[in-house]
Amino acid sequence: MPVFEMAQIKSVSGALAPGDDRAREADQPRDSLVLRFGPDKPLRLDAGVELSPLQIAYKTYGTLNTDRSNAILICHALTGDQHVASVHPITGKPGWWELLVGPGKPIDTERYFVICPNVLGGCLGTSGPSSTDPATGKPYGLTFPVITIRDMVRAQAMLLDHLGIDTLFAVAGGSMGGMQVLQWAASYPERVFAALPIACATRHSAQNIAFHEVGRQAIMADPEWRGGRYLVEGTNPRRGLAVARMGAHITYLSDAALHRKFGRKFQDRSNPTFSFDADFEVESYLRHQGIAFVERFDANSYLYLTRAMDYFDLAADHDGVLANAFKNSPTRFCVISFTSDWLFPTSDSRAIVHTLNASGARVSFAEIVTDKGHDAFLLDEPEMFAILRGFLDGAAAARGLEHAS
Amino acid sequence: MPVFEMAQIKSVSGALAPGDDRAREADQPRDSLVLRFGPDKPLRLDAGVELSPLQIAYKTYGTLNTDRSNAILICHALTGDQHVASVHPITGKPGWWELLVGPGKPIDTERYFVICPNVLGGCLGTSGPSSTDPATGKPYGLTFPVITIRDMVRAQAMLLDHLGIDTLFAVAGGSMGGMQVLQWAASYPERVFAALPIACATRHSAQNIAFHEVGRQAIMADPEWRGGRYLVEGTNPRRGLAVARMGAHITYLSDAALHRKFGRKFQDRSNPTFSFDADFEVESYLRHQGIAFVERFDANSYLYLTRAMDYFDLAADHDGVLANAFKNSPTRFCVISFTSDWLFPTSDSRAIVHTLNASGARVSFAEIVTDKGHDAFLLDEPEMFAILRGFLDGAAAARGLEHAS
Repeated sequence: MPVFEMAQIKSVSGALAPGDDRAREADQPRDSLVLRFGPDKPLRLDAGVELSPLQIAYKTYGTLNTDRSNAILICHALTGDQHVASVHPITGKPGWWELLVGPGKPIDTERYFVICPNVLGGCLGTSGPSSTDPATGKPYGLTFPVITIRDMVRAQAMLLDHLGIDTLFAVAGGSMGGMQVLQWAASYPERVFAALPIACATRHSAQNIAFHEVGRQAIMADPEWRGGRYLVEGTNPRRGLAVARMGAHITYLSDAALHRKFGRKFQDRSNPTFSFDADFEVESYLRHQGIAFVERFDANSYLYLTRAMDYFDLAADHDGVLANAFKNSPTRFCVISFTSDWLFPTSDSRAIVHTLNASGARVSFAEIVTDKGHDAFLLDEPEMFAILRGFLDGAAAARGLEHAS
Repeated sequence: MPVFEMAQIKSVSGALAPGDDRAREADQPRDSLVLRFGPDKPLRLDAGVELSPLQIAYKTYGTLNTDRSNAILICHALTGDQHVASVHPITGKPGWWELLVGPGKPIDTERYFVICPNVLGGCLGTSGPSSTDPATGKPYGLTFPVITIRDMVRAQAMLLDHLGIDTLFAVAGGSMGGMQVLQWAASYPERVFAALPIACATRHSAQNIAFHEVGRQAIMADPEWRGGRYLVEGTNPRRGLAVARMGAHITYLSDAALHRKFGRKFQDRSNPTFSFDADFEVESYLRHQGIAFVERFDANSYLYLTRAMDYFDLAADHDGVLANAFKNSPTRFCVISFTSDWLFPTSDSRAIVHTLNASGARVSFAEIVTDKGHDAFLLDEPEMFAILRGFLDGAAAARGLEHAS
């Protein structure tokens, strides 16, 4: 059950379709802390409007030290959530970064205080399109304002203010999470001691925008999407969202990994069926990915979060000069990329490193050899773990953090 | 209007929705020659069934010489057609390879007799799922048998038999067309003097199968698909087919080409709209590609042809030994790939070349430097044109073909 830290939370509207607890999860997320800002503290958005109330669902692990100097903020990716190192309340699966975050792990919760919020626009308790609009008592749908990566980070800063954390020891994240890390370093340089942007870029490429647009079109082509009003109308654009996920999932892997895992192997048979069944294992795998995703994710959140990624362009926010984003940055950076990641290729990470070098910032960079593609940042990559551990150890020494007793 | 070479053609059923001439185009294609084989000449398919009647729509350009030795068969790609060098009857656009095929062009129709059939399973006059099933008087839909690249080539061989052409001077094609070229050389080595497989592979990769599966799922998720019976029911799965096309289209280009053409430029504005409109030019471009495609292509054909490509695996057809496919091949090959093609990367073409070398076949190979991606084979690539012209000139000399008078 959620713990409500502030008292302004309202009960969920009764306007939902019977048995449909999707919007309920958005307002009253299970197994999460929930913070709510009322009308006195609106979130000013890049779109030029204010969002109020603002709710943020988050998880914490470990203990904040008395100096409040050992906090690590973890930013999740497009389809991630706050359950970074504990069981997901819907799927029952382990946290998405449990290999990396926990007692004795590279992000050691016996040493650091880890905070992981659900992202603005998400669907697991932070304000998003499936949250209840207090003005109508019904889910926002497309009346939720379009948000940006910078808006996500602004909301997270409000959370940190509430927690009394002036300066983060570190911010870490991969993919869209890495974009948030870069935005943190650009927006609040004095609040970020160390930054770990993984498998990301300072702007979304035309090809990545194109892939996102196909996913959005797949969702909006589903008649059950109902112009975004599916929660109110009791429908669910499952098929559109599943197709979007299937297409995106290919981009998270690599040709080599797909070949190694599946090749041209047939599913449960030795010969083709000469039909449109899932003949090949890779087809069956993809279909499963699509179906499983729909159970835990909201179609409108998918639209909003992909849009936020598309809009991300740190240089454009700084008069077209990327280096201005990190001018005189006091933050120390650890940039990581993967050889087989073609969604955010190493060239994107090198561009970050070159910019940081030009800005005079401290930066470590590692390109990790793997065939696992973009998703490598979520997987068992011992070299990445060793690098993160070493970087954090060095930063902790510089920060004067003591070892866990 | 089509010219019917044989008399067995039936009139089109009246079961179609009013104003819907999609199935009519499948049975009575405009601006094409049409050949029909009756029950006495069924096409034996890899699926183990016979297809009868079999109709083949095709175009020819130039004149067959008295030796019948100057014929070039051109095999089209997934979404291509027989209109290789003349105006498309639906779109009004120039032929898809008009830069390459015509009087004085690299494939010189003053010298060669060019034949381009619509592929088996297609939707512009050769038997496919939108053709009328004589048993019911209605379009086949999913009762059309699942076909393979080898089946396509078998049907083409029947066309050549009818035209009295024993040996082709050359077979040329890119992508799925290149697969047919390789299949021709494997199935009928003595009938192919020269073969030009461009931007293709001897087997479809797991990643390519995955992309195709997403496209198929997008089509089948569209409620207007109606289990494939949309022509009978008067619907059209436009949105599903458009999404499939949008996703596929990205794979035909390259990150660099998309960056060069569109980058992150906004459409008709200088700032984001904070909406789900087509904000970026690349989004608008993709949407246009999807919409335009639906006007000229059949959704079920898309399912059948992608399936045929997925099944393609020349090694599997030869006891797992690719070299057996080309053992003692008398054919001379010209293999071409493009540096930025990530759908059929150069490594796939090199595998073809290595196999041909191991088989003792004559082979030329060129990798062309371009940022245009897979679609480069359809575009203005002067180096490709020069290579094709040179290769054909050499082959023509070896074949004893005289120059055009």
